[in-house]
Amino acid sequence: MTRAQLFEQILKKKSYLCVGLDTDPLKLPEHLMDTEDPVFEFNRQIVEATADLCVAYKPNIAFYEAQGPQGWVSLQKTLEVIPPDIFTIADAKRGDIGNTSELYARAFFQQMAFDSITVAPYMGADSVKPFLKQEGKWVILLALTSNAGSQDFQMLRLHDGHEEYLFEQVLRTSSDWATADQMMYVVGATRADYVQRVRQLIPNHFLLVPGVGAQGGSLAEISRLGMNQQCGLLVNSTRAIIYASSGKDFAEKARAAALEVQREMEALLEELLVR
Amino acid sequence: MTRAQLFEQILKKKSYLCVGLDTDPLKLPEHLMDTEDPVFEFNRQIVEATADLCVAYKPNIAFYEAQGPQGWVSLQKTLEVIPPDIFTIADAKRGDIGNTSELYARAFFQQMAFDSITVAPYMGADSVKPFLKQEGKWVILLALTSNAGSQDFQMLRLHDGHEEYLFEQVLRTSSDWATADQMMYVVGATRADYVQRVRQLIPNHFLLVPGVGAQGGSLAEISRLGMNQQCGLLVNSTRAIIYASSGKDFAEKARAAALEVQREMEALLEELLVR
Repeated sequence: MTRAQLFEQILKKKSYLCVGLDTDPLKLPEHLMDTEDPVFEFNRQIVEATADLCVAYKPNIAFYEAQGPQGWVSLQKTLEVIPPDIFTIADAKRGDIGNTSELYARAFFQQMAFDSITVAPYMGADSVKPFLKQEGKWVILLALTSNAGSQDFQMLRLHDGHEEYLFEQVLRTSSDWATADQMMYVVGATRADYVQRVRQLIPNHFLLVPGVGAQGGSLAEISRLGMNQQCGLLVNSTRAIIYASSGKDFAEKARAAALEVQREMEALLEELLVR
Repeated sequence: MTRAQLFEQILKKKSYLCVGLDTDPLKLPEHLMDTEDPVFEFNRQIVEATADLCVAYKPNIAFYEAQGPQGWVSLQKTLEVIPPDIFTIADAKRGDIGNTSELYARAFFQQMAFDSITVAPYMGADSVKPFLKQEGKWVILLALTSNAGSQDFQMLRLHDGHEEYLFEQVLRTSSDWATADQMMYVVGATRADYVQRVRQLIPNHFLLVPGVGAQGGSLAEISRLGMNQQCGLLVNSTRAIIYASSGKDFAEKARAAALEVQREMEALLEELLVR
């Protein structure tokens, strides 16, 4: 998917919502347990209930990997029921030496047909570039994550004349590896204080924003600080949507939760988007 | 496996060799292609041919993931034929927020019975600690990797009074998260210049050392600079061993290549190990 196509979807749906499909087999509604593939059945109904309200789905790969080979089957089947005009993100946080990253690219872009993958920057250019070889496929690089541990290294100050933080150097260096048409960055909503510094370095790139809701980030705040002329934001919500109810009405309640976010996003787009 | 048990194996086998099982379906000897699971059959014969010469096996998970669900089946079967006194490393370079890292730990330590997993440090403490909850299971944290991209961020200088490199801060900070009984570090053989700095910070930890052979690192040099009283080194070799021949004699030639490394290691242990 191209950046223009993604923006078109955002305008059409009046939404920049990404729904996280972190489907934990231990949290599934009981009535699904008799189905052949409960994880897939859960995802299928979530997608059916929310596809007109969001522009992206983001399965966190750990949840599938933890289930052994069957998990990969459930994931593949889930991908197949996501409408093709919705952006898909393999939240895998991979990254290895060149020939190995190429294999990960093969796994997520060919074996499976994801549009994008999250990648960790620590190993540098040759660990990231293999994911960029195919047009229309995206890297979403970790920059400033939403967890407490982001303080440990991402916020270290560098001895480089500017006294920048490490995450700023990650943005600066990696923005030479690909344009805003193939690279996005993870910036946690809990780090809103730093979003202006992020936007100084990368005004045009999309940001994938976790941390709204359960983790305490504010959708309005991150939107006011981070939105650009093509929206430039995909704001993720997982638990508040997919686990809105643990009963038979889980899909219906997921839709209601997604609708609430979409309406807030519609108002924010109306207010903030420079046309 | 405990550190004492690993050291006992090293003394018994006179070897600190780790064999990388980066099994690429495109590189398998032709005569294996008719077997039910060629990747597993290749691994089984490599393990049979080298198990008395090495103390660890390290499958790089990308190679299995790229094959879809079948890859995970081959990997699981491979793990089952590795003798229990050999240390197993899931070279997965994972790392995510706490509840997600817990799922990766479940995947590699419970679904599969690996002794250890490689983890990327960028997301900090709460992304690493979930892997340390089970005694006898290890984290092998990326510190200074063997690839060109290690220059991009790992070698950035910090504004911290010491003007340390980022990888040094990674060692310093993370060595508080676990002792040398549960944590090892990846330090590339191509970065021998920095091994003394590594040893000043972490004298007792094991280092997992890639980059000998094809990538240009020297076994003798890294051993002289990095060995400690309990050896403290696992030196990995992959291509020079598992692809020593692409013919029917691949296992025999793999054994010959492993034997050559083991003999060099035996001499180095004799020379360097402080008893």
